[in-house]
Amino acid sequence: MIKVTIWNEFIHEKTKPLPARHYPNGIHNAIKEFLDADGRFEVKTAALEGENCGITKELLDNTDVLLWWGHVAHDRVSDEAAELVHNAVLSGMGFIALHSAHHSKPFRRLMGTTCNLSWREDGDMERIWVIKPSHPIAQGIDRYFEIEHEETYAEPFDIPEPDELVFGGWYSGGEIFRSGCCFYRGNGKIFYFQPGHETVPVFKNENVQTVIKNAICWAAPTARFEIKCSHIKKIGSEE
Amino acid sequence: MIKVTIWNEFIHEKTKPLPARHYPNGIHNAIKEFLDADGRFEVKTAALEGENCGITKELLDNTDVLLWWGHVAHDRVSDEAAELVHNAVLSGMGFIALHSAHHSKPFRRLMGTTCNLSWREDGDMERIWVIKPSHPIAQGIDRYFEIEHEETYAEPFDIPEPDELVFGGWYSGGEIFRSGCCFYRGNGKIFYFQPGHETVPVFKNENVQTVIKNAICWAAPTARFEIKCSHIKKIGSEE
Amino acid sequence: MIKVTIWNEFIHEKTKPLPARHYPNGIHNAIKEFLDADGRFEVKTAALEGENCGITKELLDNTDVLLWWGHVAHDRVSDEAAELVHNAVLSGMGFIALHSAHHSKPFRRLMGTTCNLSWREDGDMERIWVIKPSHPIAQGIDRYFEIEHEETYAEPFDIPEPDELVFGGWYSGGEIFRSGCCFYRGNGKIFYFQPGHETVPVFKNENVQTVIKNAICWAAPTARFEIKCSHIKKIGSEE
Amino acid sequence: MIKVTIWNEFIHEKTKPLPARHYPNGIHNAIKEFLDADGRFEVKTAALEGENCGITKELLDNTDVLLWWGHVAHDRVSDEAAELVHNAVLSGMGFIALHSAHHSKPFRRLMGTTCNLSWREDGDMERIWVIKPSHPIAQGIDRYFEIEHEETYAEPFDIPEPDELVFGGWYSGGEIFRSGCCFYRGNGKIFYFQPGHETVPVFKNENVQTVIKNAICWAAPTARFEIKCSHIKKIGSEE
Repeated sequence: MIKVTIWNEFIHEKTKPLPARHYPNGIHNAIKEFLDADGRFEVKTAALEGENCGITKELLDNTDVLLWWGHVAHDRVSDEAAELVHNAVLSGMGFIALHSAHHSKPFRRLMGTTCNLSWREDGDMERIWVIKPSHPIAQGIDRYFEIEHEETYAEPFDIPEPDELVFGGWYSGGEIFRSGCCFYRGNGKIFYFQPGHETVPVFKNENVQTVIKNAICWAAPTARFEIKCSHIKKIGSEE
Repeated sequence: MIKVTIWNEFIHEKTKPLPARHYPNGIHNAIKEFLDADGRFEVKTAALEGENCGITKELLDNTDVLLWWGHVAHDRVSDEAAELVHNAVLSGMGFIALHSAHHSKPFRRLMGTTCNLSWREDGDMERIWVIKPSHPIAQGIDRYFEIEHEETYAEPFDIPEPDELVFGGWYSGGEIFRSGCCFYRGNGKIFYFQPGHETVPVFKNENVQTVIKNAICWAAPTARFEIKCSHIKKIGSEE
Repeated sequence: MIKVTIWNEFIHEKTKPLPARHYPNGIHNAIKEFLDADGRFEVKTAALEGENCGITKELLDNTDVLLWWGHVAHDRVSDEAAELVHNAVLSGMGFIALHSAHHSKPFRRLMGTTCNLSWREDGDMERIWVIKPSHPIAQGIDRYFEIEHEETYAEPFDIPEPDELVFGGWYSGGEIFRSGCCFYRGNGKIFYFQPGHETVPVFKNENVQTVIKNAICWAAPTARFEIKCSHIKKIGSEE
Repeated sequence: MIKVTIWNEFIHEKTKPLPARHYPNGIHNAIKEFLDADGRFEVKTAALEGENCGITKELLDNTDVLLWWGHVAHDRVSDEAAELVHNAVLSGMGFIALHSAHHSKPFRRLMGTTCNLSWREDGDMERIWVIKPSHPIAQGIDRYFEIEHEETYAEPFDIPEPDELVFGGWYSGGEIFRSGCCFYRGNGKIFYFQPGHETVPVFKNENVQTVIKNAICWAAPTARFEIKCSHIKKIGSEE
């Protein structure tokens, strides 16, 4: 069983009608539901309103892969919580940044760039193309899949060159976006996935669910090795 | 002055009405025209019908950047000619593969992959987005530019992960494509650029011309260093 | 069980005293021995002297990961055999190039570069450092391990930038080398590993054995997807 | 003229005998001296003891390439100063991190990893090998060059995979290190260079000087393009 924690800002679902309708128990619980049904995952949830913004060292020590959804309250995540997450990823925890989590503190710290992009909300259809069909995250996905309505994200997306670009998004209004990107940092594996706007039921899309499940399996740690900053002795003089 | 050679298969323009109309003197001469007008380039052309498929060692020794357009006659380029080009690129010559040159012998040898892709001809509009706005090849280009009609190329495009992805293409019919890709191989710089179908006057598009000129400047050799396969002596025993 | 085929040129072991002493049944059988003992692998061997240089489509269709050792007879591997291997890798077969296989036809075709390097034979000690400690291929290896005597390979090594650099070699005479490099091409995973000179019993080194076993597990295909060059129909007009 | 600013922590040179002997006016002024002599650079210096840790927006707005040397006082650089530098790099300013600046705040923020490594001080000789001979930063350097005494840095070095690995270091005591690494982040170019320990006169080494001058030319901004986080309008509805 892969230990998954889903962190959600959990604000829109309590304050805006469309998110409340699609996700009455929050986006985190909607994701938990389809992960629970799968059988391969042991799922916990956490939210901004929790103690220490929902992030504790104990929680992360018991997490193989952390999913993150945030949008309007990135700044309310404390620097301490962000640093705990950052360190956990570098130590080997998988990290999946969903949609507007491109601007979350942990993702920006991991990337080292602004992670800026352009956006518009016009109910565009997004067609997500597979760019790396043999990648583990693309298994079970056809040449492409469609999301009936999604917020539009447009290039340029200010990230380091992805180590692996798995998906690219086409929007009916005319934009493209690198919608599925893999990064290796320290011992950790990081996946950014564009879909997931709060006003549309994206997380009920079966292909989106398949991608998220694949990404969890891909990001699960294979080894946790601490690269210390350490003084060493000359080889041969170590005794 | 950067020494540019434009190699063209030069078949469609003599056998099919639309290419003949748009490019009565061949695609190579249409490109030569706007490069000549620029003043920074010393331009030669070559064609499949020439001696040794238009490729000689002397020609390549006097070429800083080679542009390549081919489509129906990739197999008629001799292995010897392909090898001359391959070697010249590894020694430092820049190489720009235009449109269907994705399947040319030199490009495939440089990539080491099939370079396969899917395509259709429906007169789609292609909107080319800038992914790396500070890249030298993107200078002078706005957020995006449009090509009224272009052959549609679709992912997956079987290439190694590009060292730099500069442009991405959006097609009105629903596909995306990595339309501008940079690769470093040996001492050579390689740029693949998607636009350039023979039935539409793509090379008369000003933005396409800007990209090609930028790419030539980027790909021009800064150093030619032959990495030999050589026996060396132990350091200190070399005299 | 991962289906492994070990291809060996198998010439030095029959013609030169030191290789004959260390590997009386050939390098391929020395590798087979420790792979057989592991239990996770179903191992076949092939040699240059076999039909079609030891490479047939049937063999490759039944191979998950192909190991390759060659040195003096790269040119005697037919282009047909090299192409079969090349195609199989792009379709998903793992490929592990050992030592002087850096200059083998399949490896050069996959890389697209000269794969040149410098070398000398002075019985140097090679100390192999782990650069990516959390990489699957580095599991079970300490900070570094030593090979008492190995042929010295020196940078520059003319390969594309590795997708993942796992090991770096230090030689007692003063050189360094990128001794363990991963590449993704098409659906295939490729690992180049520097150790394996025929005059020293490198394949009996336990750490070398661990790396090779790890590399086989890493390179085993997760998905075989043929990226065809195919005409497609416009979305919505496909029926 | 490329506008260069050299930032130095400037502590060891005032408090420890060896640094004081080698660099009586500080490492920054030793670097300034050979840059001034070159003629291509307009050089300013800054130090931790200056206002706002020596870093102001005005200074960075007038800097093409910033060199950074720091060691014992990384934490005394304010977060505000580090953020100014980070933002300037993402906007296009070149950044060259020297030696122990691997642990400086700006470099760590740009990398997103711990940038940890192992080290020892035994007066080893470092031999720096060229891995990418055609790279602009390697011009004028032979196959390798030697630094008589340098602090030893050892892999693993916890950085993202470099976009270009230009130099690798061999130490007489037995370690290797990725001693010259290029990264592209936002619009900025970043070069990490290992040599530069304060107790040895490394910056008086001609090859080290050549590399630093090359790196400045390479890192100078070609374009400054701000990737904003911006709301856009639907294409066609923009008026």
